[in-house]
Amino acid sequence: MRVLGVDPGLTRCGLGVVDSLSSRRVALVDVGVSRTPPDAALADRLLHIATELDDWLDRYRPDAVAVEQVFAQRNLHTVMGTSQVMGVAILAAARRGIPVAVHTPTEVKAAVSGSGRADKAQVQAMVARILGLPEVPKPADAADALALAICHVWRAAAGTAAPGTSGPTAAQRAWAEAERATRRP
Amino acid sequence: MRVLGVDPGLTRCGLGVVDSLSSRRVALVDVGVSRTPPDAALADRLLHIATELDDWLDRYRPDAVAVEQVFAQRNLHTVMGTSQVMGVAILAAARRGIPVAVHTPTEVKAAVSGSGRADKAQVQAMVARILGLPEVPKPADAADALALAICHVWRAAAGTAAPGTSGPTAAQRAWAEAERATRRP
Repeated sequence: MRVLGVDPGLTRCGLGVVDSLSSRRVALVDVGVSRTPPDAALADRLLHIATELDDWLDRYRPDAVAVEQVFAQRNLHTVMGTSQVMGVAILAAARRGIPVAVHTPTEVKAAVSGSGRADKAQVQAMVARILGLPEVPKPADAADALALAICHVWRAAAGTAAPGTSGPTAAQRAWAEAERATRRP
Repeated sequence: MRVLGVDPGLTRCGLGVVDSLSSRRVALVDVGVSRTPPDAALADRLLHIATELDDWLDRYRPDAVAVEQVFAQRNLHTVMGTSQVMGVAILAAARRGIPVAVHTPTEVKAAVSGSGRADKAQVQAMVARILGLPEVPKPADAADALALAICHVWRAAAGTAAPGTSGPTAAQRAWAEAERATRRP
């Protein structure tokens, strides 16, 4: 199973593709960030991000797209821009008939680090460890997109990936197994 | 000049097309609402709205698209859904190279009714009067989309239609002229 994770944002939109292997191991396929200048027109920014998303979908042909739910505590202006990119990303997948799932930050943290209260650094360190990377992908949006894609793979495997459901227990079980797998030589 | 007004919303997305005529008169071309059921998947809802938007853009080939800025006082969940549709609408226009402008509810009210504090009923009554309609278009989202399109025509004529600018004085001047025009036999 190949998953494209999208951490939506107007200034930086994180993109991460992973493949699920056997024994809950997950491999990095590609990671990057679509950037647009804050002083550009909104229409140009959305068109740029949509074009890059289309490129990634054409190049990697994921089986699913996982999008991060907008973080409720952010300010209204940020929520609007992030939601606009989220709409564009979900539409890009829908146009291709690719299933889309939305995961909350807490679900992503719980799946990847084993705790919904993990901090960003812990989650990013776990992403690097799970994927066997020598260092944490930069910027944070890129690492977050990979965390989302990993979360989706494991929640799908645990049967908790349907939008609107939440099951940290099953996700944590998947995480524990995966963490054991990364420890093997 | 032909303008498509879009009042974004997931459950009801208002669509209204007007043509500007001489002497600031404005004529109705078409009005409608794209509806999606609240219990449908978000991806299906956005795809349905995007498909209808594409149909309207292909059928009416507007010179500009005017989108309503998300109303800040709404709750976060509504802001998210509305912003997602806003992103989809702006992208649809941008893909065709059609200029997009965003107008705030206050700008729309000021342009159409002469006051930024007008209530919805006053704005809708003015929309019907300006377009010479026997009654107010229903539902409210349809009338709001027409108000947006009229606002854009007049702000463009007054040179205040650039995104991020605000000039109720020029818009009110345009309104006063137009209101006089609608009084002519």
